[in-house]
Amino acid sequence: MTSTTTQIISPTWIAPVIPDGALLLDHSLVIEGSRITALLPQTEALARFPDAPNLKLEGHLVTPGFVNSHGHAAMTLLRGIADDREMMDWLTNWIWPIEGELVSEQFVYDGTRLAAMEMIMGGTTCAADTYFFPEAASRALTQMNFRAQVGMPVLQFANAWARNEEDHIHKGLAFRDSIKNSSLVTTAFAPHSPYNVSDSGFNKIQLYSEQLDLAVHLHLHETATEATDSLRNIGVRPIERMNKLGILSPSLQAVHMTQLRDDEIELLAVYGVQVAHCPESNMKLASGFCPVEKLRARNINVAIGTDGAASNNDLDMIQEVRSASLLSKATTGDATSLDAQTCLEMMTINGARFLGLEDQIGSLEPGKLADITAIDLSHPSFQPIYNPISQLVYTASARDVSNVWIGGKRVMDNRQLPEVDAESILAATRQWQKKILAVSNKQP
Amino acid sequence: MTSTTTQIISPTWIAPVIPDGALLLDHSLVIEGSRITALLPQTEALARFPDAPNLKLEGHLVTPGFVNSHGHAAMTLLRGIADDREMMDWLTNWIWPIEGELVSEQFVYDGTRLAAMEMIMGGTTCAADTYFFPEAASRALTQMNFRAQVGMPVLQFANAWARNEEDHIHKGLAFRDSIKNSSLVTTAFAPHSPYNVSDSGFNKIQLYSEQLDLAVHLHLHETATEATDSLRNIGVRPIERMNKLGILSPSLQAVHMTQLRDDEIELLAVYGVQVAHCPESNMKLASGFCPVEKLRARNINVAIGTDGAASNNDLDMIQEVRSASLLSKATTGDATSLDAQTCLEMMTINGARFLGLEDQIGSLEPGKLADITAIDLSHPSFQPIYNPISQLVYTASARDVSNVWIGGKRVMDNRQLPEVDAESILAATRQWQKKILAVSNKQP
Repeated sequence: MTSTTTQIISPTWIAPVIPDGALLLDHSLVIEGSRITALLPQTEALARFPDAPNLKLEGHLVTPGFVNSHGHAAMTLLRGIADDREMMDWLTNWIWPIEGELVSEQFVYDGTRLAAMEMIMGGTTCAADTYFFPEAASRALTQMNFRAQVGMPVLQFANAWARNEEDHIHKGLAFRDSIKNSSLVTTAFAPHSPYNVSDSGFNKIQLYSEQLDLAVHLHLHETATEATDSLRNIGVRPIERMNKLGILSPSLQAVHMTQLRDDEIELLAVYGVQVAHCPESNMKLASGFCPVEKLRARNINVAIGTDGAASNNDLDMIQEVRSASLLSKATTGDATSLDAQTCLEMMTINGARFLGLEDQIGSLEPGKLADITAIDLSHPSFQPIYNPISQLVYTASARDVSNVWIGGKRVMDNRQLPEVDAESILAATRQWQKKILAVSNKQP
Repeated sequence: MTSTTTQIISPTWIAPVIPDGALLLDHSLVIEGSRITALLPQTEALARFPDAPNLKLEGHLVTPGFVNSHGHAAMTLLRGIADDREMMDWLTNWIWPIEGELVSEQFVYDGTRLAAMEMIMGGTTCAADTYFFPEAASRALTQMNFRAQVGMPVLQFANAWARNEEDHIHKGLAFRDSIKNSSLVTTAFAPHSPYNVSDSGFNKIQLYSEQLDLAVHLHLHETATEATDSLRNIGVRPIERMNKLGILSPSLQAVHMTQLRDDEIELLAVYGVQVAHCPESNMKLASGFCPVEKLRARNINVAIGTDGAASNNDLDMIQEVRSASLLSKATTGDATSLDAQTCLEMMTINGARFLGLEDQIGSLEPGKLADITAIDLSHPSFQPIYNPISQLVYTASARDVSNVWIGGKRVMDNRQLPEVDAESILAATRQWQKKILAVSNKQP
């Protein structure tokens, strides 16, 4: 007997990511409830499950849902508000003043919904998010059936959500309690950066993260200034300080890492630190280059993140991994660097590992959650197709994603979001745009 | 009285490129026949031309059609055939052997049609093309109402089209005669590269190009190997050799230019050489970095090209200029480098200048040809829109282009190509794919 919740997806190609490099032609994915139960030749799947609905996707490639390893969903409301500016001008004259005046629970809820809509439409099924008001972000993401690690932000300075480090940690732990039964949302400490959190703050984070088995998600060595300021002010670069504070570990999710000496890479390797590479944000803000090949050579896991839309300006994981590949080839002088299969791994299973979710997501294997993305490769711009994974990485964009499942639920159906009230999200966006413009018109 | 050929386009935004930085809200473009005759506030346009059809494009940005300053259209048939390989492996083990066995008049005709379809769908209205069998390329492009400079290729080695340099030049000039009455196609000499054309070949090209007022389109300083080989073999780098041969001039269209010393940049500035920057191909093949800001600082015109789809893997000018901007910001360490407006200029008016067509195309001004692209910015992934030019450059892709006009003719109508038999192009593509696979399976 076939369960009533069985469904079959039958695309032209399936790239399951594990086993490494596999590409299945004319196979089907079988989903029961929230999980993948089989990958079979299409004829066999149809024979074994004659009553299950079968979605035939001619000319489509099916992959694991993309995992965006770093972002600030609510900042999508600030997309393009201050492009082509130096990072400190961008932050101190635009982003921070606008945030200071406007960030609220409603801002986070509305902005996160806009971001989740974009991410789902672009094939992303899971993201690491870090911003203020994590409970509002979590509520928005859960309502849209989106999987996420929503960080507990920790900063020294007061903001609309919390007064000081202590208050951040207190509120963060309360947020953690509120989502402990969620099947979609997990959490991690998200100290903003070495320069915005004190040693005492990091000590508390280290203590709680060990006791409660929580990861630590941290902007680290994003810019040269961050590293040199630290060296000048306290005599060590931030990674060395994190080492002394006991923060380096396999549950450290280190984001950006554009400034790395070889001895620092060695430290990351020894401690098994996870790295999130955000190439477009790093390029757009002229922050530097994450040495992905050097990290990979030391078996350091490198995932891909878009960062927030305010410095990108989109949440398109396909274009992001293409930028990672092209940038790595260019900076290493090696055209074989980050080949298409490696790129697919970086945007799926490496992201799952980064979040400690590699047993649940990141590949299409029986027993894993059915987080799945279908990309329509039938547009003339993909033809001829010699290798669909190459065409995904080097030609596609978010706009080519046609169908998306999260935990077996079809959240995008032929480019439509059946359960999302897009118009209400866009209406809220227009309201925030007016308020943001009013504030930003005060800027120089 | 309104002429029967008058049409009006009324988008939310028009970015005419000239005057510099202009962005018109709620204006209309008025087209009569093949030319733009006015840009007016929408209410005024409707009052003055009450009988003309008015295409209202809510939420769209209208720009000059994009000018792709360098490509090999027919090579679209080789899209992705050998990705993630070193350039000489890619060329000598894959591209050249396949071309050697298969390139024919039909190959060029069919491949060029596929490329033109992709370019039109991506908002490109004019391209510089260089490949074998220019008459077949020209026929394909003309049939699709696409504007192009189709190069007269010159190489030392024998191929399916010509036997030696002399034969190339002879056939090229015959091709030139055949298109002299074309309103769409122009031509230029297209010596492949310094290493594939002799001094005597360049002497003839220099002579004819001066007599006949023809531009010279040339791959130049694409890789470090090209420059160092030349230095070792003949004692000078290729640019110095071109200088001695009298090839440096405002009608030299120098493509790639990833290896440039300051004294070479000075030479380019003195002679007013045009530069085509192909960032994605240069990154994908790990060729190096074109120093765009240094060139711009010396008032050297820099246009944008996709190069062929075999090293890109698409002909998407929007993504290409985004890569140019991100790469320039990253390599100069200056986040203000190649801002969105500059990018829009590079992909339009700078391309027109590169081709010597700046009096005809490249901006939306009364009197210029109506080569126009409309980009639909209504997708949720663009919201909110603070600056539509920023969203074009940093967020859009070819897939967001909705309508395209070339010489006043609407070649793309709401994402459809009304006069193109797409199925016959795709059927021919599938046939070539089989033949190409059969040949490429012989490769290592």
